[in-house]
Amino acid sequence: MMRVAIKKCLLGLMLSAISLICYAQQTSLITQKQRFQIDRFKTFSGETIKNVAVGWESYGQLNAKKDNVILITHYFTGTSHAAGKYHPDDETAGYWNAIVGPGKAIDTDRFFVISVDSLANINAHDPNVITTGPASINPDTGKPYGLDFPVVTIRDFVNLQKAVLQSLGIKKLYAVAGPSMGSMQAIDWAATYPDWVDRMISVIGTGQSDPWTTALLERWTVPIKLDSNWRQGNYYDTSPPTDGLVAALTFISQDALHPDFFNALGQSTLDFSPLESGPLNDILAKHSIVTWLEERAAQRAKYMDANHLLYLVRACQLFIAGHNNDLVSAVKGIRAKSLILPSATDLLLMPYQGKQLHQQLEQQGKQSQYLELSGNLGHLLGVSDIQQQSEKIKLFLAQ
Amino acid sequence: MMRVAIKKCLLGLMLSAISLICYAQQTSLITQKQRFQIDRFKTFSGETIKNVAVGWESYGQLNAKKDNVILITHYFTGTSHAAGKYHPDDETAGYWNAIVGPGKAIDTDRFFVISVDSLANINAHDPNVITTGPASINPDTGKPYGLDFPVVTIRDFVNLQKAVLQSLGIKKLYAVAGPSMGSMQAIDWAATYPDWVDRMISVIGTGQSDPWTTALLERWTVPIKLDSNWRQGNYYDTSPPTDGLVAALTFISQDALHPDFFNALGQSTLDFSPLESGPLNDILAKHSIVTWLEERAAQRAKYMDANHLLYLVRACQLFIAGHNNDLVSAVKGIRAKSLILPSATDLLLMPYQGKQLHQQLEQQGKQSQYLELSGNLGHLLGVSDIQQQSEKIKLFLAQ
Repeated sequence: MMRVAIKKCLLGLMLSAISLICYAQQTSLITQKQRFQIDRFKTFSGETIKNVAVGWESYGQLNAKKDNVILITHYFTGTSHAAGKYHPDDETAGYWNAIVGPGKAIDTDRFFVISVDSLANINAHDPNVITTGPASINPDTGKPYGLDFPVVTIRDFVNLQKAVLQSLGIKKLYAVAGPSMGSMQAIDWAATYPDWVDRMISVIGTGQSDPWTTALLERWTVPIKLDSNWRQGNYYDTSPPTDGLVAALTFISQDALHPDFFNALGQSTLDFSPLESGPLNDILAKHSIVTWLEERAAQRAKYMDANHLLYLVRACQLFIAGHNNDLVSAVKGIRAKSLILPSATDLLLMPYQGKQLHQQLEQQGKQSQYLELSGNLGHLLGVSDIQQQSEKIKLFLAQ
Repeated sequence: MMRVAIKKCLLGLMLSAISLICYAQQTSLITQKQRFQIDRFKTFSGETIKNVAVGWESYGQLNAKKDNVILITHYFTGTSHAAGKYHPDDETAGYWNAIVGPGKAIDTDRFFVISVDSLANINAHDPNVITTGPASINPDTGKPYGLDFPVVTIRDFVNLQKAVLQSLGIKKLYAVAGPSMGSMQAIDWAATYPDWVDRMISVIGTGQSDPWTTALLERWTVPIKLDSNWRQGNYYDTSPPTDGLVAALTFISQDALHPDFFNALGQSTLDFSPLESGPLNDILAKHSIVTWLEERAAQRAKYMDANHLLYLVRACQLFIAGHNNDLVSAVKGIRAKSLILPSATDLLLMPYQGKQLHQQLEQQGKQSQYLELSGNLGHLLGVSDIQQQSEKIKLFLAQ
């Protein structure tokens, strides 16, 4: 019985590969998607995008002084659904629901918590996501942009968040916090708009995309670009490159995990064996663990757009805090207190990356605290097991 | 001057991604490729392959008793060119030349050292490689096998090596040693033919392909299968899937390295920057580190066959010592003394894998010694920096 329960829990964790949380859902937080629109948005690279729309959601109440705002910035395959449910009967809540809610680490009784869908959000076809990217209609042509969409950066996500906040009359962030790609946004906020940011929480993050990370991220684009359905991004009136997208998602899933978890899962749930008879007798057959990864990726791919994945990879590859090719001077500008929370078993953005940022902050006399998440989930710890640092986050926000 | 020298050394290491050794080439060992042929070879899965030919080479002299034989088993992208040169003016020597030669750890003044090209060797078009695989002519059709070639296993490589040894009148191995995929062969030798094997050295190896490894290896096949030139393996009279093969090789290169090395290289040699203007302004442009990896992969791909890569991946995925789905009983049969040498920074076959094998050997009262290679090269340490354990290997072989 216990084994079945553990299996179900393990399966659940991987099923979304990101968000189902083995943690009591103690919330009755209900949220809804809001829409923000801007006629012309100028990108960091100098291009102008017309009619930009993004979704956002919030939890808790904005106070009269508008000084109780915490911005949550989402990860690569995530959305602005950071916490709560849209309907009480939703199966799952937002990905950081374990730490965002009434009385939780990020206490919605006290804070107005807000999150914004990124540009080129990968979940372009999720009805709960509003984003502008290559799959959007280019007003100049009446057709989807495809690769005519300009390259966008983490800074552009930040600037759009700033526009959303300003539209609400907000001029200051009590804190900004995010995991993975969300950490890039949080750090860029602190480096670029130091007057805005009092506290910054970087979870499973990095201060820059180093050569290793850039090459690793590039791999996620390879299956899409090789899929003959991709057609240089022009697939919106034909079949999309689903095989390539699914393969890319299997890469992402494995990169976000660690062998300790993955092997336990394979052995306990799939009765995996190296010498499975299918693969032994047919070069095109696949091992159970591979099929399993692909099936789950295919489920997730239904709401995703392949070009959007390419654009998100590029945004991450281009990332360096402050976006000026110089981490030292970017850190110089930071006024926020920082809390750096890598995962000890992370193989995607390894702890050395958070540590480098923390050390740079300390060297320059900034207030920075470094703590590692522990467990065998790898990178995913920062999303699915963030509650293990609830007390530290609460304490950090109280300072 | 020193910086230039370091850059050249780093570049050299990556250039072949496997074999250029920052170590004085103190050898005058000259070898030549030999050919072994067998009319009918029965595979582990029960298929029969006709006219199987593989290459082999040797270093040192076989003594009268034929009891001084050390078999070297090669890694995934390797060949039987383990040591020495074909001509004195060859730029590079075999990949383990640092430890195989007169007076070296594997002393060719004393031992007859032999190595055999694997079936489906990836370097199918290298004039110094003789192999039988999907690119070979099927005698029944007069055309290349393509995917009609049967799935082959690590056991088949072992059995073919045994046939080569028997053709020379050899009935016993003083030792068997190999890195990575070569370690799989070495372990399978010890588990399957315990009467043959007195000593086994597993370098950057594993006793089985666990779920993590199986899924990770699968990735190497993805770009090839998505390349429209692949055509289900039937590309021998058209254009081969070069883009897919090159992409797969970039995956392999990065998997074999570690961020510490990779980032130092990117920063020092390429003047890498996250915010390079090409990728910032063009979604199809690539970062310098990506282009650099691809250019080197393209050089290596010239001698390689994409289907062969798929078959080698499958052989590794199917691997469990003894090939009977039971590592415990496989280890039970081992009589060899074992030396297990993982790389401390390995991200491909992590140290836990060698450690598991070592612990299983110890639990069953077998003689096993565990030592880690150190340095920032990752998996590649076991090929390019093996000489750091020269003394331990020499000592192990003296026992």
